[in-house]
Amino acid sequence: MAEGGILSVVGIGPGDGAHVTPAALEAIHNAQVVVGYRTYIKLVRHLLEGKEVVQTGMTEEIGRARAAVERARAGANVVLVSSGDAGVYGMAGLVFEVLREIGWKRGDAPTLNLVPGITAANSCASRVGAPLVHDSCTISLSDLLTPWAVIAKRIEAAASSDFVISLYNPASGRRTRQIVEAHSIIRRYREGSTPVALVKGAYREGEKVVMSDLDHFLDYEIGMLTTVIVGNSHTFFFEGYMVTPRGYTRKYTLEGDVLPGQQPGRSLVVREEEV
Amino acid sequence: MAEGGILSVVGIGPGDGAHVTPAALEAIHNAQVVVGYRTYIKLVRHLLEGKEVVQTGMTEEIGRARAAVERARAGANVVLVSSGDAGVYGMAGLVFEVLREIGWKRGDAPTLNLVPGITAANSCASRVGAPLVHDSCTISLSDLLTPWAVIAKRIEAAASSDFVISLYNPASGRRTRQIVEAHSIIRRYREGSTPVALVKGAYREGEKVVMSDLDHFLDYEIGMLTTVIVGNSHTFFFEGYMVTPRGYTRKYTLEGDVLPGQQPGRSLVVREEEV
Repeated sequence: MAEGGILSVVGIGPGDGAHVTPAALEAIHNAQVVVGYRTYIKLVRHLLEGKEVVQTGMTEEIGRARAAVERARAGANVVLVSSGDAGVYGMAGLVFEVLREIGWKRGDAPTLNLVPGITAANSCASRVGAPLVHDSCTISLSDLLTPWAVIAKRIEAAASSDFVISLYNPASGRRTRQIVEAHSIIRRYREGSTPVALVKGAYREGEKVVMSDLDHFLDYEIGMLTTVIVGNSHTFFFEGYMVTPRGYTRKYTLEGDVLPGQQPGRSLVVREEEV
Repeated sequence: MAEGGILSVVGIGPGDGAHVTPAALEAIHNAQVVVGYRTYIKLVRHLLEGKEVVQTGMTEEIGRARAAVERARAGANVVLVSSGDAGVYGMAGLVFEVLREIGWKRGDAPTLNLVPGITAANSCASRVGAPLVHDSCTISLSDLLTPWAVIAKRIEAAASSDFVISLYNPASGRRTRQIVEAHSIIRRYREGSTPVALVKGAYREGEKVVMSDLDHFLDYEIGMLTTVIVGNSHTFFFEGYMVTPRGYTRKYTLEGDVLPGQQPGRSLVVREEEV
């Protein structure tokens, strides 16, 4: 039975205290053991006094998940921290893979507690305007665990059907070909003037934002910590911001007037719940 | 000049206090005027004492954006609240459309402050497991402002290239055809046993979660406030959770052993930054 053993998988958002939720703070506050990648542990170090901290290097994701599961299974209150949302390219999936491996059943220790966080696409978007207001997707360009053919197919599908595209892991020291190839696939479907934003370390010290376009963004530095946001065919630049319109101004005038072919009285009938 | 006039566009997350960030709280705390859709105003009503509150019905999105801009332009400290992240199918894009309409320039009042929040896809995902761990997309099925042909094309692209798909606005009182059509498009590319989660009102009173699959999810109630998460071809159910693996167990054993065709010593070389 799950007596005392709790495993909270916690997203701390972009990394500054202003964007860590009360739920995440509470989970960390209540924990006896905090497990995480060294860089993320640093981001919450002011919350860790009196706790056991298990910090590992970046090559030890599986070991980190297993350590967290084992400590919680043995009865400890454990927090496994991720940056952003732990459920988006984060540790949450791996925790379930480890639990399955050990034959964990619901009702067994540990009790699971999944705490959502602000994911990188959203924190980065808020630094450049409103690029993700309409349909969008995230694609990781890391082909360490996913064949490039699968990734390329997704890029092509997203480009051809006019999704706004957030590219995670666009490049690393040795891995530089993928972003070039992604560019050439997207360029077949979108104008060279399509807005592109590069955001590195949103809300962290040394944050760097570059506003560019599809024909020029490869001229700038793109690394492991950069998120690349590629607009759709309607995305525009406005006073240094990148904005994807929802379609109000195309279909209706902002004055509420009826455009040719529109039904009078429907211009403002946009339901809030129809987000 | 931007003297005193501030417009903060603030995402309050799923709607309970445990998931409102300190940055969002601070913006609301500092505001003189808070503008929002009635339902969202209710979610933060405990923070509004002594403030002027402009709450409108759900058909008045454009009026709400314009009211917020005008009050801030006139010098007030204004917060416009959205649920989730205001930059994802939220008010942020519309604010920029209104600013463009009135010829606003950077440096003019109001000063803009975009505060990210936990978006519905992420809060809903955390209630069902870890379905969004790999490449995913969001598609709104509302065709009030987007032609159905565009939406259908996106569904087909996402289904055929194996994205996990979060469907927003899957249905409303009169609008029931779209989710049926979305199902039939996705079913052409994915097995009927593909996990599907329906999440309504995550973290709110009356939250409702249904775990189903592609062949059966249409048997359940789906409304305006439901988010439908459709797994990719690798997504699995595990002890009542829905999980999309990152690929660790397929490519490497969790024991760190080398599978046929793999390089020894690379099994744990998965960089944390390569999220």
